[in-house]
Amino acid sequence: MQLLLLSNSTLPGEAFFHWPADHVSAFLNGRKRLAFVPLAAVPGQQPDYVTKVRSVFAAMDVELVPLMGEGDMDALLAGCDAVAVGGGNTFHLLRSLYRNGLVRSIAQRVRNGIPYLGWSAGSNVACPTIMTTNDMPVVEPPSLRAMHLVPFQINPHYTEATIAGHGGESRDQRLSEFLEVNPAMPVVGLREGSLLHVVDQRTSLIGRDMKLFRHGRPPLIVENGSTFRTDLTDLKNE
Amino acid sequence: MQLLLLSNSTLPGEAFFHWPADHVSAFLNGRKRLAFVPLAAVPGQQPDYVTKVRSVFAAMDVELVPLMGEGDMDALLAGCDAVAVGGGNTFHLLRSLYRNGLVRSIAQRVRNGIPYLGWSAGSNVACPTIMTTNDMPVVEPPSLRAMHLVPFQINPHYTEATIAGHGGESRDQRLSEFLEVNPAMPVVGLREGSLLHVVDQRTSLIGRDMKLFRHGRPPLIVENGSTFRTDLTDLKNE
Repeated sequence: MQLLLLSNSTLPGEAFFHWPADHVSAFLNGRKRLAFVPLAAVPGQQPDYVTKVRSVFAAMDVELVPLMGEGDMDALLAGCDAVAVGGGNTFHLLRSLYRNGLVRSIAQRVRNGIPYLGWSAGSNVACPTIMTTNDMPVVEPPSLRAMHLVPFQINPHYTEATIAGHGGESRDQRLSEFLEVNPAMPVVGLREGSLLHVVDQRTSLIGRDMKLFRHGRPPLIVENGSTFRTDLTDLKNE
Repeated sequence: MQLLLLSNSTLPGEAFFHWPADHVSAFLNGRKRLAFVPLAAVPGQQPDYVTKVRSVFAAMDVELVPLMGEGDMDALLAGCDAVAVGGGNTFHLLRSLYRNGLVRSIAQRVRNGIPYLGWSAGSNVACPTIMTTNDMPVVEPPSLRAMHLVPFQINPHYTEATIAGHGGESRDQRLSEFLEVNPAMPVVGLREGSLLHVVDQRTSLIGRDMKLFRHGRPPLIVENGSTFRTDLTDLKNE
């Protein structure tokens, strides 16, 4: 299984998809037909989103096959040699994936070897559940269970920063609530501008350090450039 | 129906529950037994939360009856003359309310006249759904539908502020996604340090201005101190 799971598409002040472009191009490694799922965007924004993403991949000489609207998505997917799931609202994405039978069909094809690229919401749905998304639950998916392509949760756009003078919970508080009620599930806090490259049982971190949250242990900072087991069991606190 | 729906319990730098204490005391208007729902806190934090809230209400000479653990919650509720639902994680709260039959039994008693006080997650669950919470979906409630005591959504802790240098969605972006997929439902952006006081068909805003989001219209700033119809239909853009 090959996955490239990005925290985010775009860093503030940079052009759309600038930071990950070279990593993504290397990951696709010559594949030319990329199924693209824009379903994290709300419907009115999907066409513009496809246009924007298409131009990014055209520059890599990769043809985009959007999975949206009606039509037989599994057949479209069958004609592609990689799949990408874009960001937006994770609840909207997961509901749409279920409605189109894509939770199962994407997961199956990825388990059979086609590369999976996700960013933000697209990384959330590669996890066991979407319970560590930052998004607002603007619609209700039939379940919070997702594709479970990796055995841990990702919190994309991870940051310790909070809004000055604002009393809402910090990200760390939210994740510690998650761990208390889901003590068996580790969470990777994946900072903007970083990604996980998963190749079967080995995963590499590229971009910035990450913060690993596990129940009953202090958070563990994992250095940029580290490679570790995909089940994270070799990442140990001192 | 009488509701006091607070954006938040506590302003940064102030003692717990300082800002709303006088409003809450006036709202309770001599009632002495307050059923308190601490179920937005994750289980390990509920006892401390009850202790903290109990001392706030003791200072108002109000006895707190916590609804938590096992026991017949409806019977406990029946012995109280007001109900309060505290903040924490809205998903955890709603799942716990469903598990204990409290979605229906609290709503029924409030419709029959006992005053309802909520803050943060406790304000979210007074709405038709919890789809405008800011919280992380750390557990999966059987439904996102909530008590529907008011005919609009509240976004508590509302702010236009964002984290500098961070690419995550702003609150306004999230709410505009909500409106696109739920065009019939208005959302009140309720700033920290403010509350809605609902008495049947009339609602007053106390604390700070609020921002009303409706599909297809620009957001409307409603001034602190305004009184309007609870269905919000007399709040008009120029």
